Amino acid sequence: MNYPSALIEEAVNELSKFPGIGKKSALRMVLFLLKQEETEVTKMGEAIIKLRKEIRFCERCNNVSDSQYCNICNNPKRDQQSICVVEDLRDVMAIENTNQFYGTYHVLGGLINPIQGIGPEQLKIESLLKRVKEVEAKEIIMALSANMEGDTTVFYLSRKLQPLQVKISTISRGIAVGGELEYADEITLGRSILGRIPYTTN
Amino acid sequence: MNYPSALIEEAVNELSKFPGIGKKSALRMVLFLLKQEETEVTKMGEAIIKLRKEIRFCERCNNVSDSQYCNICNNPKRDQQSICVVEDLRDVMAIENTNQFYGTYHVLGGLINPIQGIGPEQLKIESLLKRVKEVEAKEIIMALSANMEGDTTVFYLSRKLQPLQVKISTISRGIAVGGELEYADEITLGRSILGRIPYTTN
Repeated sequence: MNYPSALIEEAVNELSKFPGIGKKSALRMVLFLLKQEETEVTKMGEAIIKLRKEIRFCERCNNVSDSQYCNICNNPKRDQQSICVVEDLRDVMAIENTNQFYGTYHVLGGLINPIQGIGPEQLKIESLLKRVKEVEAKEIIMALSANMEGDTTVFYLSRKLQPLQVKISTISRGIAVGGELEYADEITLGRSILGRIPYTTN
Repeated sequence: MNYPSALIEEAVNELSKFPGIGKKSALRMVLFLLKQEETEVTKMGEAIIKLRKEIRFCERCNNVSDSQYCNICNNPKRDQQSICVVEDLRDVMAIENTNQFYGTYHVLGGLINPIQGIGPEQLKIESLLKRVKEVEAKEIIMALSANMEGDTTVFYLSRKLQPLQVKISTISRGIAVGGELEYADEITLGRSILGRIPYTTN
């Protein structure tokens, strides 16, 4: 497509990098930006830059954080020996919203996905194993998406955790098979945490 | 929703200002940004800021431009006496892609919409009237959306243009090329019958 200005072309190219945003949607976003006050647009641009530049990750659980340890890890009321393993921070937020879990989290940063070239070494698995030993964890709750990548990751983790003799459970399949964790409603997600079942490989 | 970091909350709030982007989509965009390289994210943020800061509008037709007049107004091959009135730059781009129009454009910057508080004085109507007089325009082609706001704007403009004795036309309304008759809505089909044109084989 021919753009009437190099500035527009550049902004469209940048915005269309977002997943699910094509060139047409990006152009609509650009038109929206052109109609806004300059201070508003500058604020948005700076928020994006600042986000990536200043974001920190909890040194214990890999959740995003404003300081060395996240609010959940820092909370003395949270059970450090009960660790809920999740894919990313959206899942932490979703589970926190259920008010059904009083342990701590471990954010893997993804799921094992050989097609996309994501192997166990790209995920925060070593730090999980180290942490399980250190705090003498009593239970690991696998709260991963109910798809092939999630199942593969649970299987891999269970093998790695087996020598540590920790109880492993998965959230119950109250969530529709094939469903994404972030789209589950709070009641279903809360029940699935309460109704977690021991994980077995056979 | 509770966000684990003030940085994330701010970025979600900013990104959800885009039309059609809610908090969940904005959070997905934020997660995407967190996975990108810092230089990439900085580039995106700067493109947004630069776009709004440095964009210029053609002093003749109000189309976006990198200089005082846009490429179309500056092109000596384009007919300055044939002016196509459009809502925004997307329409300019769409018509340019057809390669069927060799006149110039006038970008209104919106349509008359009393519900949203957009009156004629907010649109580039005065500059259109001035321009029609200056270049002694021969034809004004209304290429506005076929909805109430578009029709209102065309009606208002036609009243304003009447004293200037310029030919006014609107783009034809009818069944889309390749469209099935049975799926066309009644109003479109009715208009295409009223606006029928003589059939020629060449």
